[in-house]
Parts: sequence; C-alpha cells; structure tokens
Amino acid sequence: MTALDPASDTSYEIVAARAADIGDILRLIRALAEYEKLSDQMVATEAALHEALFGSTPAAQALVARSGDDVVGFALYFQNYSTFRARSGIYLEDLFVEPAHRGRGIGRALLRQLAAIAVERGCARFEWTVLDWNQPAIDFYKSLGAIPLDDWTVYRLTGAELQTLAREPA
Amino acid sequence: MTALDPASDTSYEIVAARAADIGDILRLIRALAEYEKLSDQMVATEAALHEALFGSTPAAQALVARSGDDVVGFALYFQNYSTFRARSGIYLEDLFVEPAHRGRGIGRALLRQLAAIAVERGCARFEWTVLDWNQPAIDFYKSLGAIPLDDWTVYRLTGAELQTLAREPA
Repeated sequence: MTALDPASDTSYEIVAARAADIGDILRLIRALAEYEKLSDQMVATEAALHEALFGSTPAAQALVARSGDDVVGFALYFQNYSTFRARSGIYLEDLFVEPAHRGRGIGRALLRQLAAIAVERGCARFEWTVLDWNQPAIDFYKSLGAIPLDDWTVYRLTGAELQTLAREPA
Repeated sequence: MTALDPASDTSYEIVAARAADIGDILRLIRALAEYEKLSDQMVATEAALHEALFGSTPAAQALVARSGDDVVGFALYFQNYSTFRARSGIYLEDLFVEPAHRGRGIGRALLRQLAAIAVERGCARFEWTVLDWNQPAIDFYKSLGAIPLDDWTVYRLTGAELQTLAREPA
C-alpha cells in the first residue's frame, strides 16, 4: 500500500463498538497478546467478552476503528478512580491497530476520542501501562504529552497466592 | 502501647464503609497523601468522596478498619478488567493504617478481605501500585506472594496535555 498522509486519510471512522464487533475485537486482542509475547495469558472467549462489554453490568467499553467494512483497530477502557483527585479517570486497557493499517493516524484518533470522553466525563486523568521494551509506543505516548510514572510499580496477586490470602484465617 | 500479637488481636473489625465514615476516610486519605509526599495533588472533599462511594453510580468502594469507635485504617478499591483473561479484577487504589495502629495485622486483614472479595466475584487478579521507595510496603506485599510487574510502566495524560489531545481536530 502507498504511504498515507494521516491528516488527509478520512477513510476510517472511530465509533463505539457494537455486539456484532465482538469477533473482530477478540481477533485484535489475540494479535495484541501475540505482539506483547503474552499469548499464554490469553484465554478470552467471545461469550466472556460479550458479557464484559454488553452484559447487564458492563465491566468495560470499547471503541473500534472501521475502515470500509473492516474493523482494523480498537481501544478497550474502563473508569478508574483517584482518591487524591476525588475524580474518576479513564484507564485504557488495550490499544491495537493492525500492522497493515498503521501510519494512518488511527491509533492517535482512538486516543483522541478517549481523551475527549475523559474530558466530557470530567475525569482528571487518562492512564494506561506500557511494556518497557515497546519503544515505538513509548515514543508515541510521550509525543502526546503523557508522563511515565517511573517511581511507581504495579503489584499483582493472582492464582494460588490470591486464593491462599483469601482463605487465610482472620 | 505494648506490642501486640496480630494473631490474638481481635479488637478491631474490617467492615464495608458507611456514609458516616466519609470524614474519617478523608482524614486517612490526607494522611496517606502526606506519607506519599503527594499532598499537593490532594484536593478531595467530603462531598466528592461521598458521591464516589455512595452516589447513584459509585466509582469505588471502601472497607474500613474499626477499633472500638475509631476508624484506624481503610482500603479503597474498584474493579478493573483484563482482556486477556476476559475477567474483572480488583484494583486497590489506597491502603492506609494509622501509624499508632500498625503491627496489629490490620493492613493484612484489609488485604485478606479484598482477596476474598476478588475470589467471590470470580476475579482473576488483585492489583495495586506502590511507590518504589516504600520498602516496608514492598516487603509486606512480596510476603503475600504479590509479583511486581517490573517490565511495565504506567503512563498518564492529564491537565493541559489531556485537554489539547481531546480538542485536536480529527
């Protein structure tokens, strides 16, 4: 394909995901897991994803990038909360654009739409995490003015350790 | 005060926060912000915290540790979501125990209760972030089997940069 000037490429649109997009979103989540070398953790199914996005109490929301009839990118997010700010924030769990469609400004358009959602909801912050070796993503995020929280580390309790603590006698 | 054996100290209880606890929780949030040297970011008010915990669409939930008539610790949390797991998780935003009441096992009891909530809700993960200089907290979390996600960094877009992206022409 020829190089595209992102500013003149209006042949895609960023829209809220519909239930009919679940299969495409799952395909893109799998592609993201492969890119992040985390496919061993990827156990999502269409049914579980449908419940999360369109069930009675949705756990997350998603935007998709549609190019013609194809879903070529997505962003999946939910709200977090800052006690210090006493305000909700937008947390971006996943962002992915198909390799063949990069350079068209689609990733930026997804983030722009999420920033607009954050502002509209009165959120204080828009946050996400990045793998430290993913330099292209880091450069992109920094170009938008995002700040790395270098003095914080995420801790995770899962599997047997989570079960053990949960069942520990009080 | 004398040293207490955490295992024999049953003079506190871990319970869901009530609206009447808002003032105490705000006091503990302020103490946490001071401990984390982040008081400049702390702008929460009782009204905003009340709305977040007890409004029509709560953004977060809280547990408090009650010792006699006093609230001496709290944990504030919300649900996040993993696309790879296609399951919700528990995200711990804040954990704090008053200095005078440390060593009684209250922090562990708050985490144990959250782990039990995570298991009960079918969550895959229980997560939080820690300041890298907070070695006592890090040692404690590791003793529970929590794993630091050392190869991930949180990025944050806020303030003028968030507004700028939100308003960027498509």
